[in-house]
Amino acid sequence: MPVTNRQWLLARRPSGTVCADDFRFTEAPVPAPGEEEVLVRTVMLSCDPTQRGWMARDTYLPAVKLGEVMRSFGIGRVVASRHPDFQEGQLVQGMLGWQDYALARPADAALRPVPPGIRPEQALGVFGVTGLTAYFGLLEVGRPAAGEAVVVSAAAGATGSVVGQIAKLKGCRTVGIAGGAEKCRRLTAAYGYDVAIDYKAEDVGARLAEACPGGVDVYFDNVGGEILDAVLARLALRGRVVLCGGISQYDATGPVPGPRNYLNLVSRRGRMEGFLVLDYLHRAPEAVREMARWVGQGLLKTDVDVQRGLENAPAVLARLFRGENQGKQLLAVAELEDAG
Amino acid sequence: MPVTNRQWLLARRPSGTVCADDFRFTEAPVPAPGEEEVLVRTVMLSCDPTQRGWMARDTYLPAVKLGEVMRSFGIGRVVASRHPDFQEGQLVQGMLGWQDYALARPADAALRPVPPGIRPEQALGVFGVTGLTAYFGLLEVGRPAAGEAVVVSAAAGATGSVVGQIAKLKGCRTVGIAGGAEKCRRLTAAYGYDVAIDYKAEDVGARLAEACPGGVDVYFDNVGGEILDAVLARLALRGRVVLCGGISQYDATGPVPGPRNYLNLVSRRGRMEGFLVLDYLHRAPEAVREMARWVGQGLLKTDVDVQRGLENAPAVLARLFRGENQGKQLLAVAELEDAG
Repeated sequence: MPVTNRQWLLARRPSGTVCADDFRFTEAPVPAPGEEEVLVRTVMLSCDPTQRGWMARDTYLPAVKLGEVMRSFGIGRVVASRHPDFQEGQLVQGMLGWQDYALARPADAALRPVPPGIRPEQALGVFGVTGLTAYFGLLEVGRPAAGEAVVVSAAAGATGSVVGQIAKLKGCRTVGIAGGAEKCRRLTAAYGYDVAIDYKAEDVGARLAEACPGGVDVYFDNVGGEILDAVLARLALRGRVVLCGGISQYDATGPVPGPRNYLNLVSRRGRMEGFLVLDYLHRAPEAVREMARWVGQGLLKTDVDVQRGLENAPAVLARLFRGENQGKQLLAVAELEDAG
Repeated sequence: MPVTNRQWLLARRPSGTVCADDFRFTEAPVPAPGEEEVLVRTVMLSCDPTQRGWMARDTYLPAVKLGEVMRSFGIGRVVASRHPDFQEGQLVQGMLGWQDYALARPADAALRPVPPGIRPEQALGVFGVTGLTAYFGLLEVGRPAAGEAVVVSAAAGATGSVVGQIAKLKGCRTVGIAGGAEKCRRLTAAYGYDVAIDYKAEDVGARLAEACPGGVDVYFDNVGGEILDAVLARLALRGRVVLCGGISQYDATGPVPGPRNYLNLVSRRGRMEGFLVLDYLHRAPEAVREMARWVGQGLLKTDVDVQRGLENAPAVLARLFRGENQGKQLLAVAELEDAG
């Protein structure tokens, strides 16, 4: 058994973009599992915008406490188990945290086995929280009909790229918004968007008016801010805004203005609705089944951006907020074969 | 036949609170109906916050053009008809405008007979657009369940007072927000609200937290602004915000901040949805039937504030934006018996 467990503890509440100073890198002994507990060797960690919220304040989950291990989804290998449902050697996913070894009560950490035949980067990406967010947010909250105009922000991101492709598979016209020429090239070339809008170089409102002459039927919003306002101004009758997040606002240090065009929801009879994928996890099998079929047929492409080394966790998380990630941002902590 | 038709024409787009200078009071000859047209003597006009929107810009209806008669719902008596469905002497409601006589094609003016036994102030109030807005907005968009906490802003207003009473009749706990001690007294004494909050004298957020310890399940929003933000901060899980209007913002001369707490819709899985009563007019009979029963049983009380004289139309409309109206604001233009 190894004896050292490297951990990133939350040192302070973030202000502006997350950085290494928000955390403290420490070492602790690797614990032994007590009754009903499982010890998991972390293999790969998921980096998600929502983690900044967990650092900052109570949201849908209580904030991470100062001095606690930073919370993170991840995948790992069971190295010791005193829980009847988990066996040594098993690959599992759940809330492992930024550490080499997680000691967990399975229910508290939402621990569940990774289904056989699924690679860790798929389990954390398209078949994990990221893909399920896209699937249920678009289909259950947005409810697009064939022929409708679906607009996605952060459209080249891990969630957005899946949203755009599912919308296309459901017969919608898709418009992706992303920052920079290279991302916009991928929107049309890799993810099949009908139109790509570069918010760093183009007038989003004017391009939206051109791309969606009948207005925006469904907007899957990952960013908030001015882009949300630009879409609200061009909402179609009975348009739906799926609120997934507001990454443009997470780094704000002061109060952030809300969407000033929200009253268009009245004249357009529109709906703006938030959701959390946590509410849909019990329906994961149906989504994974359908998405696995699309992946198998080459109809759903996903990109992963795997960085390495637990010691780099803060810097890798920060990539999300600077838009540097090329697809789903992951952090490899140990090789699959080495794990355990 | 009288020969003079007094009319208020829109003279300019409003800036700040509406005032007489936004209009021009003129006289024109009373026209004779052409084929398929009806001439209506205006009896009573409805004053509604949405009229400011019609003056300012294209919304769900095109803006009133400069030089055109100011648009208004109203009730009148048919004095001449060349349309087979309308007879001289009949009492009708529709878009009559700020004028003594309206020459209308029935379809364009949404002209329909006032059902027998209904007084003009009821037809324009509880059984008209005002009451239907309350009924369908609350029940179809808000969908409150018995036992839920329903919060209403402009709660002593024509629409708000009906919303609060219907919510109570459906078994909800009701919290009304209004400005001033006298209005708040009426909230509990006349309209049966469980709790009244005076936004001019009290900390709305603190009072909401106290009145709705489990959060706000349904918020019927007539005002927008800071009160909307205070409610969003205290939304219950799966809470619903019914966007009816934003009267606090209609008079703004510059850009108005949006609801900065809108991202709470994500963590609370909330929904914010706009609606227009126009979409429900075809279902008016079912609502009028149910509300007429409540009125007959003394379970639904309504107040009307009748001012007099077409020459006072701008000043009477402005009462709404200063919160001076005591119930549904109406403007009597002619006596029922005199009409025609």
